[in-house]
Amino acid sequence: MAEKAVFYHAGCGVCVNAERQFAESLDKSKFDVEMVHLGEAPSRVAEAEKAGVKSVPAFVISGQPYHINFGANLADLK
Amino acid sequence: MAEKAVFYHAGCGVCVNAERQFAESLDKSKFDVEMVHLGEAPSRVAEAEKAGVKSVPAFVISGQPYHINFGANLADLK
Repeated sequence: MAEKAVFYHAGCGVCVNAERQFAESLDKSKFDVEMVHLGEAPSRVAEAEKAGVKSVPAFVISGQPYHINFGANLADLK
Repeated sequence: MAEKAVFYHAGCGVCVNAERQFAESLDKSKFDVEMVHLGEAPSRVAEAEKAGVKSVPAFVISGQPYHINFGANLADLK
């Protein structure tokens, strides 16, 4: 069964690029990717923070955060 | 045709984890992934550096670096 992977971003250039290269390119038989734009869904910032996300773009897979480069601090999206 | 993606790592825990979650999980129809262990192939550090890689684990896709979390500084692998 595909594992859940959440991709948190904020629509920034770095985010869009990471989305294209990774979020849209993961093997769909392995991961069920959900894209979350924290600027449009600020209520989910807390959930990202709890998983250890410090900045976007980042993935959370199996409860672990994976930051890809640096777009914006999570603190600045609150 | 699959695009070339190079995954640079140094065998560290953060690297192995990123390898499992990303390098082995990219859609093989989109990316042809090459894994490079810079500890075992130090002659390739310069190539990674030239592409803008500052730390491992990192991918280089279309000449752009994508750092995933932080395992070790490239400077410490020279």
